[in-house]
Amino acid sequence: MELNKHNNSILLKDFRKLARALTLVENDLAGSADLLKEIRTSDTPVIGITGPPGAGKSTLVNAMINHLSSQGKSIAVLAIDPTSPFNLGSLLGDRVRMAEQFNKPNVYIRSLATRGSLGGLSGKTIEMTDVLQSAGFDYILVETVGVGQSEVEIAGLADISIVVLVPESGDEIQSIKSGLMEIADIFVVNKSDREGADAFANTLKKLVHQKSVPIPVIKTAAHRSEGIENLINEIEKYSSGVNVKRAFLLAEKAWKLIQNHKMKDIDKKKLQINLEKASRNPEFNLYRFIETFI
Amino acid sequence: MELNKHNNSILLKDFRKLARALTLVENDLAGSADLLKEIRTSDTPVIGITGPPGAGKSTLVNAMINHLSSQGKSIAVLAIDPTSPFNLGSLLGDRVRMAEQFNKPNVYIRSLATRGSLGGLSGKTIEMTDVLQSAGFDYILVETVGVGQSEVEIAGLADISIVVLVPESGDEIQSIKSGLMEIADIFVVNKSDREGADAFANTLKKLVHQKSVPIPVIKTAAHRSEGIENLINEIEKYSSGVNVKRAFLLAEKAWKLIQNHKMKDIDKKKLQINLEKASRNPEFNLYRFIETFI
Repeated sequence: MELNKHNNSILLKDFRKLARALTLVENDLAGSADLLKEIRTSDTPVIGITGPPGAGKSTLVNAMINHLSSQGKSIAVLAIDPTSPFNLGSLLGDRVRMAEQFNKPNVYIRSLATRGSLGGLSGKTIEMTDVLQSAGFDYILVETVGVGQSEVEIAGLADISIVVLVPESGDEIQSIKSGLMEIADIFVVNKSDREGADAFANTLKKLVHQKSVPIPVIKTAAHRSEGIENLINEIEKYSSGVNVKRAFLLAEKAWKLIQNHKMKDIDKKKLQINLEKASRNPEFNLYRFIETFI
Repeated sequence: MELNKHNNSILLKDFRKLARALTLVENDLAGSADLLKEIRTSDTPVIGITGPPGAGKSTLVNAMINHLSSQGKSIAVLAIDPTSPFNLGSLLGDRVRMAEQFNKPNVYIRSLATRGSLGGLSGKTIEMTDVLQSAGFDYILVETVGVGQSEVEIAGLADISIVVLVPESGDEIQSIKSGLMEIADIFVVNKSDREGADAFANTLKKLVHQKSVPIPVIKTAAHRSEGIENLINEIEKYSSGVNVKRAFLLAEKAWKLIQNHKMKDIDKKKLQINLEKASRNPEFNLYRFIETFI
């Protein structure tokens, strides 16, 4: 593996080599295991951007990139698409909106389809984020396209999870209470130039004050680049306290990777065929069946 | 295990024994492995009820129970709560709404907190549903309380997945397109007495016709018990075609259970402590670290 011998700064300056390393890992090609064993991850916090569709996540990421790159910072974006082929439209739509970023020398954008890993954190997402971390970017953003398990996918990985909402999310206070409060390190109320934005932000602020450490609530209007500096400042402030969470995340990542390794010899297709046959027996019992695999 | 010797009908008629069997399995107590190896699961399809908070899932389940039990059918409900202790309010709220069901002799309701299994299908959910299946109910409903990974949790388990929406879900067409279409076997537009219900149902119908086999869209107003009979009929119709999906689900379940077994000797807490120590070394590499476990 030629790549192993390059240190971080070379990787960073050579996006083609970085892309090749990521492709190696994404497709589990020969050499990927060696590559992963050689990387040294940096302290750069991984910033996750989640939220319901239509909240303006891509526009926000776009505005963040503009802001950061104008300050000479380097930024990597991993866009995770946990959905199906027929959702390609939305993926492409987002990518087109991000097209202006592709030519910037300090901005690297990569997509990853995690279809097949229904729910939870995929091994590929962990590995590719680690490769990006080894490349020494100043900022790493992980964003989801699509919905569903996206929050979960990112929460298990990001040092800082930003949950993007819009004034209209007021209807979903129950959902915010029951799921997103667990995940969010920072709430963003985007499209805050819309009616009801202040009222919603205030409701949210009251809600987050029920936690022992209140979650910051930042208002942005990403399409006008408003509030982005505030958000970046809040991220910087949060970064200093990231270490406690990182230990937990590291264990989660290790767990998932060990799990993948332990299961790698079991062929899911074959398992299904065998099960189909076995379950025709009226005496079939799933718990006896799996005994041969454990 | 005394329980093993009882056949299904005895389990069904004795809710106390059923409850004890479920508790055994839920807490992985001595005898639970033996119990699972002795059960014979029935053909009763498992009906999953998912959807965003506020869609009226509990009210719908309530109405379904009323309808079915008035026809002399027996029904088991497993309410899955994938969220946190501080969400207990919403759980209790739902349970209170269901209180009228608790005294019916043919209705068995059980809650299961799956916190800790962030995303995906938990082993406990699989095992407890299998125990309920062995008890010979006419209908088994699995419902989620809370949000987030709920759809995923149930989709990996239910023979029939019912996704409950409301007329206001029109704003979330994108989310329906990108996630729920994959999961839903039947769409319910609940609260269909509200404004915009017909328009939304029609949009949804157009959407589902893009699939090779269109997904049925049923309008209900569960709080008035409207549309419930239609829904039950649609479930019955669907049940006859359930077998293809069941082979796939069985493989998913087996996979998850094998995974749990393979990981059972790894102590997550200890892993975290060891990782915390190891990662202080500047030469630390996660992929070399996990080699000792695989």
